[in-house]
Amino acid sequence: MKKQQFGVLGIAVMGKNLALNVESRGISVCVYSRNRNTIDEFLIEAKGKNIKGAYSIEEFVNSLETPRKILIMIKAGLPVDETIDKLIPYISKGDILIDGGNSYFMDTIRRSKKLEELGFKFIGTGVSGGEEGALKGPAIMPGGEQDAYKIVEPIFTAISAKVDGEACCTYIGTNGAGHYVKMVHNGIEYGDMQLICEAYALLKGVVGLTNDEIHDVFEQWNKGELNSYLIEITSEIFSQKDNETGEYIVDIILDKAGQKGTGKWTSQSALDLAVPIPSITEAVFARCMSSLKDERIYASSLLKGPDVKFKGDKKDFIEAVRRALYTSKICSYAQGFALMRVASKEYNWDLKYGKIAKIFRGGCIIRAQFLNKINEAYENDENLNNLMLDSYFNNIINSYQKDLRYVISTAVNLGVPVPSFSSALTYYDSYRSANLPANLLQAQRDYFGAHTFERVDKEGTFHHEWVSKTKK
Amino acid sequence: MKKQQFGVLGIAVMGKNLALNVESRGISVCVYSRNRNTIDEFLIEAKGKNIKGAYSIEEFVNSLETPRKILIMIKAGLPVDETIDKLIPYISKGDILIDGGNSYFMDTIRRSKKLEELGFKFIGTGVSGGEEGALKGPAIMPGGEQDAYKIVEPIFTAISAKVDGEACCTYIGTNGAGHYVKMVHNGIEYGDMQLICEAYALLKGVVGLTNDEIHDVFEQWNKGELNSYLIEITSEIFSQKDNETGEYIVDIILDKAGQKGTGKWTSQSALDLAVPIPSITEAVFARCMSSLKDERIYASSLLKGPDVKFKGDKKDFIEAVRRALYTSKICSYAQGFALMRVASKEYNWDLKYGKIAKIFRGGCIIRAQFLNKINEAYENDENLNNLMLDSYFNNIINSYQKDLRYVISTAVNLGVPVPSFSSALTYYDSYRSANLPANLLQAQRDYFGAHTFERVDKEGTFHHEWVSKTKK
Repeated sequence: MKKQQFGVLGIAVMGKNLALNVESRGISVCVYSRNRNTIDEFLIEAKGKNIKGAYSIEEFVNSLETPRKILIMIKAGLPVDETIDKLIPYISKGDILIDGGNSYFMDTIRRSKKLEELGFKFIGTGVSGGEEGALKGPAIMPGGEQDAYKIVEPIFTAISAKVDGEACCTYIGTNGAGHYVKMVHNGIEYGDMQLICEAYALLKGVVGLTNDEIHDVFEQWNKGELNSYLIEITSEIFSQKDNETGEYIVDIILDKAGQKGTGKWTSQSALDLAVPIPSITEAVFARCMSSLKDERIYASSLLKGPDVKFKGDKKDFIEAVRRALYTSKICSYAQGFALMRVASKEYNWDLKYGKIAKIFRGGCIIRAQFLNKINEAYENDENLNNLMLDSYFNNIINSYQKDLRYVISTAVNLGVPVPSFSSALTYYDSYRSANLPANLLQAQRDYFGAHTFERVDKEGTFHHEWVSKTKK
Repeated sequence: MKKQQFGVLGIAVMGKNLALNVESRGISVCVYSRNRNTIDEFLIEAKGKNIKGAYSIEEFVNSLETPRKILIMIKAGLPVDETIDKLIPYISKGDILIDGGNSYFMDTIRRSKKLEELGFKFIGTGVSGGEEGALKGPAIMPGGEQDAYKIVEPIFTAISAKVDGEACCTYIGTNGAGHYVKMVHNGIEYGDMQLICEAYALLKGVVGLTNDEIHDVFEQWNKGELNSYLIEITSEIFSQKDNETGEYIVDIILDKAGQKGTGKWTSQSALDLAVPIPSITEAVFARCMSSLKDERIYASSLLKGPDVKFKGDKKDFIEAVRRALYTSKICSYAQGFALMRVASKEYNWDLKYGKIAKIFRGGCIIRAQFLNKINEAYENDENLNNLMLDSYFNNIINSYQKDLRYVISTAVNLGVPVPSFSSALTYYDSYRSANLPANLLQAQRDYFGAHTFERVDKEGTFHHEWVSKTKK
């Protein structure tokens, strides 16, 4: 019997769509699921395609040509370890296991080490694009040994999204690099989504636009420098009605946001690496805050806001919100890329930021024109410390910062919460401050804990003998 | 030979001072250090006191009366595990090991389990107050089995700080509860310090006050509702000169803040538990940002700020900063206490927030009058969801919020970064919003990932069939 060329283990929606995508490129596929019915149903759905099913791990592994290429598409965490352990007795040296789920990058580092020690190859890869991307072409961020990547590269580039004829797939780095970059991609996505929500809150709450008008605004914005998938679907969302009630669907949806963990991991990693990413973190916290719906309803009756009305020009304000959104977006991406830069050093990945920006242009949720500019920034200077220092971004922020200040001070005075806008600005203003008040903080730490400090006038660490006039 | 009543393992500054503190209450002490010289030097320093030294773990353990009470005061992390493993062969069932370092609470949970299974008792305790507190009376936050705590309670309460005759020590909860509460205490401390730094930045950068004038302002503030140890030492810091140059010490200290990890852990735990604590997290990120001194100096030449001057009344603005600081402080404590509340449920600790606020009043770095108000809030309602809902705090915020808005919008328009002030306000404004724009976020998630949403008009989770007009 002829062996199949590619295996997919786990055929929930992402696995299924990736299997179909792979097969559509002329590569034969065998799928496996713990659930017999799931396999049977999929085989009916995939009738006429070169997709086979296997009903045991052993049969699955034996149906694949060597070196085997097995894509694992299951829930991140313990199930991945369990599945790898089940595969190990049947696979051969040189076979390649590919984890395409949203695994935590430290788990991927651990699994890489274990599998490589056993003589197997392991690729932990980010796959972005949701259901539709999986089927038609996702952005792919593979991490692992380069020789393993070389073997799967033709398949990965074939199934990935294409932008200007280039595949949205590039080798990211060893072990956990691919999952790390996917994690930061998701953190950036959290930031983008929250910033758009804050713009919505301002258009609705300050300017008083209707859903139709908000639809028009986002549609217009999508034609300019904000052009992106998320702005496009936002514009579409505001035009759509609930089938049941006939009302705008956006007004029917409850304001409690869910999350699956990659945004949280991004913030936690940034905290570990001491890289400030406040806008992304505020976006994560905004989801947490949104989920406290009952508390918020109760608090709204007790905690007062200002009773000021907006008196500015509405059209000017809308344009200011657009500029504020673009400026904040730049600050947020600057944070995400600065984080990757520190992680790259910490974990010896040698990340190529320009290439990463390039593969984000298609397939994935944050796809946007704008990423070409990030690509160019790193093409010009691959050691760029911060995106905001690149002349393109720098010119924009310098020219739009007054709009961001106008929008935030308006929101502050009207009581509209804009946490990610605000933290984008404080990030910008902090980063451009040659002097911050942390000298006082170091004085405090030295005062109560003798933690020592550095001096402005010479090298070394010093302690001051603090004299208290009010010692108790 | 008469056995000693209390053992201290690790006699760096904190261990040494705690040993002296314990002995000063009439309790005999034996100390141990890996370093022979450290022991000898300390014994010379402690001459005439009932403090003995031991030169091996075995000798140390054998010199103590049973049940032994051994306080471990060493660097958190692996050294604690190694030390516990070295002690195990010599100690007896019922002996109590006490970890008084800043251990990560999950480590404490793990160590408790292990030691209790072996028949030993383990207390993980927060000790706050720096060097001086350790010597004269710290705030103590012990976690572990209650019967173990009962045995050490007389010693702990004897050595702790006292406020209005009450010991700043109370049983916190099982296993990691004490270290958790100490961690959150430190997170709150990060918030307080950053807020004070932002107030300093405004007094200096917006109002143009001199160090002497800033000293006077903080001295005044310390007489009112902001009265606290940190405000007191801040006032003193601004009056002190560098011995070497004769300049104000605060101007000699480099603005690069250090950190030891407890603030970071607080934010990471909040992210795990999905509790928004943006002000504390911005304080952690502000330290990270401060450490990028070279980047900031470079960026300051490239990234532009506004060229607006402050035109308001200086005296009014100073009072507004005071109110903004107090309001932000309330929001920051609200975040820390909300975090403890969720952690208490998650880890089954049954934390008593009123008692916790009470022991924070003395010994520790965040000690302040203000904590009486928090104590009262939880005495009135131990199930209070959020401090801001208590009438005392609620009245203050309602009356001071306009000042916070004035201060932030001024800072925003003048380009002075106030990340913790800003996030305190967006926290407040978000929490009092019955409706947040997260409905759009859920729409986006359902659009690209079929993540489903809840509806405003009925129970359940739903998916909308999104129709794209611009499908590619």
